Amino acid sequence: MTGPRLTPLVQSLPATVPFVGPEAQERASGRRFVARRGANESLFGPSPKVGDAIRDAATGTWKYGDPESFELKQMLGGHLGVAPECVAVGEGIDGLLGYLARMCVAEGDSVVTSDGAYPTFNYHVNGFGGVLHKVPYRDDREDLGALIAKAAEVEAKLIYLSNPDNPMGTWHDAEAVNGMIDHVPDGTLLVLDEAYAEFAPDSTVPELDPDFLRFFLRRSFSKAYGLAGMRIGYAIGHPDLIRSFDKVRNHFGMCRPSQWAALAALNDQAYLGEVVAKVTASREHISNIARDNGLTPLPSATNFVAIDCGSDGTLAKAVLDALISKGVFVRMPLVAPQNRCIRVTCGPEAEMSAFAKALPAALEAAKNHISA
Amino acid sequence: MTGPRLTPLVQSLPATVPFVGPEAQERASGRRFVARRGANESLFGPSPKVGDAIRDAATGTWKYGDPESFELKQMLGGHLGVAPECVAVGEGIDGLLGYLARMCVAEGDSVVTSDGAYPTFNYHVNGFGGVLHKVPYRDDREDLGALIAKAAEVEAKLIYLSNPDNPMGTWHDAEAVNGMIDHVPDGTLLVLDEAYAEFAPDSTVPELDPDFLRFFLRRSFSKAYGLAGMRIGYAIGHPDLIRSFDKVRNHFGMCRPSQWAALAALNDQAYLGEVVAKVTASREHISNIARDNGLTPLPSATNFVAIDCGSDGTLAKAVLDALISKGVFVRMPLVAPQNRCIRVTCGPEAEMSAFAKALPAALEAAKNHISA
Repeated sequence: MTGPRLTPLVQSLPATVPFVGPEAQERASGRRFVARRGANESLFGPSPKVGDAIRDAATGTWKYGDPESFELKQMLGGHLGVAPECVAVGEGIDGLLGYLARMCVAEGDSVVTSDGAYPTFNYHVNGFGGVLHKVPYRDDREDLGALIAKAAEVEAKLIYLSNPDNPMGTWHDAEAVNGMIDHVPDGTLLVLDEAYAEFAPDSTVPELDPDFLRFFLRRSFSKAYGLAGMRIGYAIGHPDLIRSFDKVRNHFGMCRPSQWAALAALNDQAYLGEVVAKVTASREHISNIARDNGLTPLPSATNFVAIDCGSDGTLAKAVLDALISKGVFVRMPLVAPQNRCIRVTCGPEAEMSAFAKALPAALEAAKNHISA
Repeated sequence: MTGPRLTPLVQSLPATVPFVGPEAQERASGRRFVARRGANESLFGPSPKVGDAIRDAATGTWKYGDPESFELKQMLGGHLGVAPECVAVGEGIDGLLGYLARMCVAEGDSVVTSDGAYPTFNYHVNGFGGVLHKVPYRDDREDLGALIAKAAEVEAKLIYLSNPDNPMGTWHDAEAVNGMIDHVPDGTLLVLDEAYAEFAPDSTVPELDPDFLRFFLRRSFSKAYGLAGMRIGYAIGHPDLIRSFDKVRNHFGMCRPSQWAALAALNDQAYLGEVVAKVTASREHISNIARDNGLTPLPSATNFVAIDCGSDGTLAKAVLDALISKGVFVRMPLVAPQNRCIRVTCGPEAEMSAFAKALPAALEAAKNHISA
């Protein structure tokens, strides 16, 4: 008997997983992490008012969420100074990226990104049969000129730019991004991922272009707002593009408590300011721990610090493995030469001690492992 | 300047919305519904233990959910008597349907469903370019033989069957479904939607086929478990098919509190039993209200009752509009002759009075409207 017939495209896809979650690593090792510093979650947590909103929503969970996320789009529009018609809300940035890839990428279509940039973007592009063209980082930053040149060369449907960048933490200022926007080829959409924008200097974030024809900006409640577990992403774009999400999205995909949580989070900008200040201090703390161990922290405008372990991917991977074996969950860039680094998420001072304590022994173990 | 280039398929899609939410209707009318009886949500709410679980999760929302939903799949497997490898978890049944359509349906592929069955299934099939072949209901029930015959004729990738049926509430017993499964053509997958199975007689639900090659069963936490707002659907199928979801799904799409809520809900089967008993009583209550008004309730194995308004879709629509204008949110089937009915969701006795009170006047208004 023949089973179900998958499409040729889906048959051809690898059963890859963009990221193995920390829970899966814990199950494999049989031990819980003592420090969860790998997923760039906000260890400072959400606003207490968000907790209240979720608790208030707990008994109303028998109702579907509003499929239009009307109030949230209204509030986001007001917050960002754009019309609500320019705002799309979805199941995390990953969900919106999947929809965008589906909307724009048919089999064989070209897409441009940096080699080593966000794997989940690549996953979605590949998932719709797109062809990824990757340009290398330059000096640990995404190379704006090279991205534009490649997009023109291959007539790309999309260009992906993360600013500030993940996994390196580096950034370009708004002037540079605006210069790039001016050169986006006709018919190409710039996917500007600003998941970490709240942590960056004000001069990093370009003003929103009133016609939006050339770019599309993605933001998240998962980082600065501390709501990774609630899956709320949003995008700002031209109303025509935003309307097209309605052709493909899971209309009832948003959780009701997530909508409430997002409203409460937006309403507590004072708390956001506190978190950003704490993250700034924590970046310095992580950088000092790195320096104390003879390593080089990269400058960062995010809630994590990439630490150059001083050699190559083999050493960094050994450091990472040693940290994980000591209960400290961290991640690392996947592509050389960025993979000479490990990536450590910011968090409260009190919880930093596990990392500070584990790092010297991890470095020692890694060096022994390499020389063995 | 040219904007983004959507794929030809997405360009061709209508910007339809499968369902307009009650919130949108409230915004349009400027008034809140006094009775929310249209979306087959569980007005009895979730278990109090689920509320506790969500409140407990409120401060942990800075963590992403486990992308593997490992514990939930373990518990569901145990609950259903299948291996966890046979279970997929996703952002509601709608989310899983979207993934399944993407996995199986390429442009031009045939899919079979009943005319008037779940619009969101059709939305997803159309969204991937599938060609829907619809067979009529027979005596207000889905016509199993006709679905099979049509599938064989058009070499369908998928057959959709909702049992018990939405929007009519009718059902087939397990023997009939098993008979249908035996005749599913090679290479066709039966998508058996059992969102309402918990409300149905035990004899309705077929035993799970150990090889699963021919069918795929979908269940929800949105109905009997009272968690529509948390977006948790699950599917049982052959491990090869279940594994293929990993090729396309939003791996970090599940909300963390939703995973906790689902575990708590599954753990409180006593509460589920109470809800099912209350729904059974409520069906009888709705049916009596219908009879008291000279209308004919259809037999139902779900948490709603389809009420035959005694004429055609024009009259039923007028009744529905009149109920909505009186603050009672209900829905109706979309296709003749099923659209002679309105569909009313079960709920607590105390809240039924709004419907009981509104119905006579709504019928009167509808008849006046028709004869005018």
